[in-house]
Amino acid sequence: MDGVIKGRLESLRQEMEKEGVDYYLIPTSDFHNSEYVNDYFKAREYFSGFTGSNGSLVVGREMAGLWTDGRYFIQAEKELEGSGITLFRMQEEGVPEIPDFLKEKMQDGQTLGFDGRTVSCLEGRKLEKMLGSGQGENDRKVKIRYDMDLAGRIWAERPQLPSHSVWVLPEEVSGKSAQDKLKEVREKIAQAGAEYLLLSKLDDLMWLLNIRGNDVECNPVALSYGFITPEEMYFFIQPSEVTQELEAYVASNGIVLKPYDEIMTFLENYNYTCDGKLGKALLDEGNVNYALYKMLSGKTCCISGENPTEQLKARKNDTELEHMEEVYRKDSAALIKFIYWLKHNIGKQEITEVSAAEYLDNLRRKLDGFVELSFPTISAYKENAAMMHYEATPGSCKTLAPEGLYLVDSGGQYMGGTTDVTRTVALGEISGEMKKHFTLTAVAMLQLTHAKFLYGCTGRNLDVLARQPLWNIGIDYKCGTGHGIGYILNVHEGPQNIRWRPVSDKKEAILEEGMVVSNEPGVYREGSHGIRTENILVVRRGEKTADGQFMYFDTLTYAPIDREAIDTQYMQPVDIERLNGYHAAVYEKTAPYLTEEERAWLAEVTAPV
Amino acid sequence: MDGVIKGRLESLRQEMEKEGVDYYLIPTSDFHNSEYVNDYFKAREYFSGFTGSNGSLVVGREMAGLWTDGRYFIQAEKELEGSGITLFRMQEEGVPEIPDFLKEKMQDGQTLGFDGRTVSCLEGRKLEKMLGSGQGENDRKVKIRYDMDLAGRIWAERPQLPSHSVWVLPEEVSGKSAQDKLKEVREKIAQAGAEYLLLSKLDDLMWLLNIRGNDVECNPVALSYGFITPEEMYFFIQPSEVTQELEAYVASNGIVLKPYDEIMTFLENYNYTCDGKLGKALLDEGNVNYALYKMLSGKTCCISGENPTEQLKARKNDTELEHMEEVYRKDSAALIKFIYWLKHNIGKQEITEVSAAEYLDNLRRKLDGFVELSFPTISAYKENAAMMHYEATPGSCKTLAPEGLYLVDSGGQYMGGTTDVTRTVALGEISGEMKKHFTLTAVAMLQLTHAKFLYGCTGRNLDVLARQPLWNIGIDYKCGTGHGIGYILNVHEGPQNIRWRPVSDKKEAILEEGMVVSNEPGVYREGSHGIRTENILVVRRGEKTADGQFMYFDTLTYAPIDREAIDTQYMQPVDIERLNGYHAAVYEKTAPYLTEEERAWLAEVTAPV
Repeated sequence: MDGVIKGRLESLRQEMEKEGVDYYLIPTSDFHNSEYVNDYFKAREYFSGFTGSNGSLVVGREMAGLWTDGRYFIQAEKELEGSGITLFRMQEEGVPEIPDFLKEKMQDGQTLGFDGRTVSCLEGRKLEKMLGSGQGENDRKVKIRYDMDLAGRIWAERPQLPSHSVWVLPEEVSGKSAQDKLKEVREKIAQAGAEYLLLSKLDDLMWLLNIRGNDVECNPVALSYGFITPEEMYFFIQPSEVTQELEAYVASNGIVLKPYDEIMTFLENYNYTCDGKLGKALLDEGNVNYALYKMLSGKTCCISGENPTEQLKARKNDTELEHMEEVYRKDSAALIKFIYWLKHNIGKQEITEVSAAEYLDNLRRKLDGFVELSFPTISAYKENAAMMHYEATPGSCKTLAPEGLYLVDSGGQYMGGTTDVTRTVALGEISGEMKKHFTLTAVAMLQLTHAKFLYGCTGRNLDVLARQPLWNIGIDYKCGTGHGIGYILNVHEGPQNIRWRPVSDKKEAILEEGMVVSNEPGVYREGSHGIRTENILVVRRGEKTADGQFMYFDTLTYAPIDREAIDTQYMQPVDIERLNGYHAAVYEKTAPYLTEEERAWLAEVTAPV
Repeated sequence: MDGVIKGRLESLRQEMEKEGVDYYLIPTSDFHNSEYVNDYFKAREYFSGFTGSNGSLVVGREMAGLWTDGRYFIQAEKELEGSGITLFRMQEEGVPEIPDFLKEKMQDGQTLGFDGRTVSCLEGRKLEKMLGSGQGENDRKVKIRYDMDLAGRIWAERPQLPSHSVWVLPEEVSGKSAQDKLKEVREKIAQAGAEYLLLSKLDDLMWLLNIRGNDVECNPVALSYGFITPEEMYFFIQPSEVTQELEAYVASNGIVLKPYDEIMTFLENYNYTCDGKLGKALLDEGNVNYALYKMLSGKTCCISGENPTEQLKARKNDTELEHMEEVYRKDSAALIKFIYWLKHNIGKQEITEVSAAEYLDNLRRKLDGFVELSFPTISAYKENAAMMHYEATPGSCKTLAPEGLYLVDSGGQYMGGTTDVTRTVALGEISGEMKKHFTLTAVAMLQLTHAKFLYGCTGRNLDVLARQPLWNIGIDYKCGTGHGIGYILNVHEGPQNIRWRPVSDKKEAILEEGMVVSNEPGVYREGSHGIRTENILVVRRGEKTADGQFMYFDTLTYAPIDREAIDTQYMQPVDIERLNGYHAAVYEKTAPYLTEEERAWLAEVTAPV
């Protein structure tokens, strides 16, 4: 593979030379800055060999570097070996961000190139400011060209742009009509002082219109754009994805369909006059791509702000929450069935990381309302679990044995919710150190779960509650503690998260009532083991006292935390109470979905420690 | 008093009318945005009757409003009663900030007035932007006049501008020469892309030059300005404050003395040309006043940034830390002597809030190297302690009895450090609820003390460790958990703090090695009791593991936490361990400074619970 990668980079450098480009940037993104992308957009993987979901490749005439985050350090090291590509570990001490790196390396007069459709307005403007503005004394006069897809020229076997039919979500599942949502969004646009909204974020578009697509694996979204005016909404989608159902549905909602690839020309020719003056367009710089932004900002005044859809989508309505509660009970029961099977069959039949994942995936597939997995199941044994987002492949996966720790992170898309859950299971003997790590991870997860906090807190205020038990023993997990979760949508969504330091310039989001967030501390020891225990929480409004409005979390996930890996010497009485309380709830919520044998077993593994 | 306040406001309104001013703003500030100010600058107190250290008065033709923070809500309510002034509780839900309030109330064409020397550049520009810029669609065309001190016209009995001799700190106390500090500061100025620094923050000036003054009660600072160029430093100070010692000292350091009141004309006439082009001036918008900023920004290009002195001052050097450790042991011993005396004399002789404070203050005064108190001692019995910054006065103070809780928050300025410590003591029987509150406050304080955290954390990441035990029972304290502390300087200093939400737009400061910070959670129940337990911590660099550089806190304060107010049912085993461990250290560190009787008593009250 290394020779292949080197060859591809060489071809890319030839194209760069032809175009007079000194550095070329390939981020991992589609035209919508989606976190997960269709294969069509996986140019960074093609040119680097690194398969993680997050990473950016910078190719210079003499160097190539890959930037990725803590979840992928171990994996990237492995996958980049021999490629000549340098790994830049994001957020580690002394590691520059890409704009700083380019500022340092690039000379006046040099050219940076990228496909402006795959770089967000925010990133593009940051590069512009740092490299090209020439305003400050220390700024460089670097030229930026964003009108070129050099990767596309070389990548002969590039997959087609995906095309799958779009389907409509019934209101008893969505809880709110597209009309009502559009009304709320228009109010927010006006509040932001704008007339128009260019909506580019795929899951926001799906949420707004109560539709779903299938253009990104595990993310039920359709490649599309929306342009909302005070009177109209234009929805840009590939004609091949439009069904009769969709046509009738949008017509009845007064929404105008347009071909996906006409967004640029539409925006270029649109008359932005509104009540006799130039109307302003609201756009989220983090999600609208740089090419679209450059065009739109040349035509009308752009106001930068959060997509109003983001907050509205993040706060689940009562219908959504009711569906989610049921879906999570069933999904948890599927996981319990899997663990039951695993614990009873390990050592008796051959089970590999891949076959274990298949067994679990099939349990989910049998559930009512199953749509697809919410992400490829992470099934990782022993040291493989130290790679946070390891994906087992049939050729190279481990066979499980009755010893050591096994980690499974999985979830499904159902008509009624998106799930995400991680459990780590002792398959037999494990070391005292592993028990210590496992126990403190459970303590950490439960400590955050039981947080009671004043309204106004963001995830940044609370993150330490999950990290503290691990920081106390000098251990950190190189990822956030939690992310927002979509409703029959992306398994990662914003604006809320639980992190101790911000990952972007974006304003931190207050944890609002109805937001859903994951809680997933862990311990990752390279070459040895990986532990993660992940529950999903809902933010609830609690008591209002003389000192303010308090908030708390409810738990959606109900699966046992392996007692065989617990060592109570690392727990305070309050931790033990919390674990026993949680386990009692696990039994109560999931028993109805289990067989008699599974129930009997569950009673044992959820008995008080 | 109410009639007096109403009369003063009426006179002010007459002056406003003469000048065509519709709203007049009186913040609590000197010309340097100092937190505590000399009596000369206490116009806000004069016009409102509110004596707290933080507050801003807005006077309109028909209304008057006072904004203050959570520490002062109870006190302000009391002091404003009958004055007709509305209390605005800052940071409470639905309470607008002053600029928002004015934006809402003021009409186009109206005028806002204030003394531009008492408003920071940051605040002034915020008001400008919100009220006067006229750039955005929704901006108002309100006129701002900042060239008037209307308060001064009415305030006949206004005190004189203070004037006290300045003294020089020997290098064995400062740990670093002014020359060396000036060199570091010039490097930082250059790094910020500037040639000049206008330094207006009083404690930063004292730190930089290793001098101290006496112009603000409890803050050993002199009213002064500094203007640093690549070659020179101009130091503006009242000629009456200059001693022969100072003259010789600045001369030997190449520093040019100028009269304090010539700063404006100096900056107006200075030639900002540097190497043939216009040099840039760095200034901290939060501390340079608006009038100076308006002048300077009209003369040369201003770069906004933190004063480079702030970080340098906050990270105490080894000499400073060694002195502080010793000073804190002695200061803690003085507090122990006080508590010993109080516990043995309560009910036997008359002790009032004022006489108790005097007793403690006198113990401090007897210590070697004592300079002055670091703030007026807060001596508060029972419900008075619910007012965070209550100050007892001889006329109206409570007499202590052998029951209930007594809170004492106090500190000293010594040649070797500034101290700040709070203890709450049970004078006899206290209720079960008080014990619960007291115990959880101790648990909270110790939980933060024992934080181990990755380098990069700010106080915002850690604040919840102190709040969580109280939030769990629906209680919050309406102030930060901790503030930075000066070295023979202001008892409050930045940039670091421990707060769960930011109080300004200022960037949060990372907790750096050598920073000193208070840790003071509490419970305040209006009309009943107030509890605060405050230790001072030093940030230390801990182990570097595979997961990063860890930091931790060392404690400087060693005074017992009243065991008679502790109820162990609210403690986990780890909390009990921490308390016992702390108490063992209290005995060890302070015993050498105590009499035999005090030592014997201390052994009892620090025995394990």
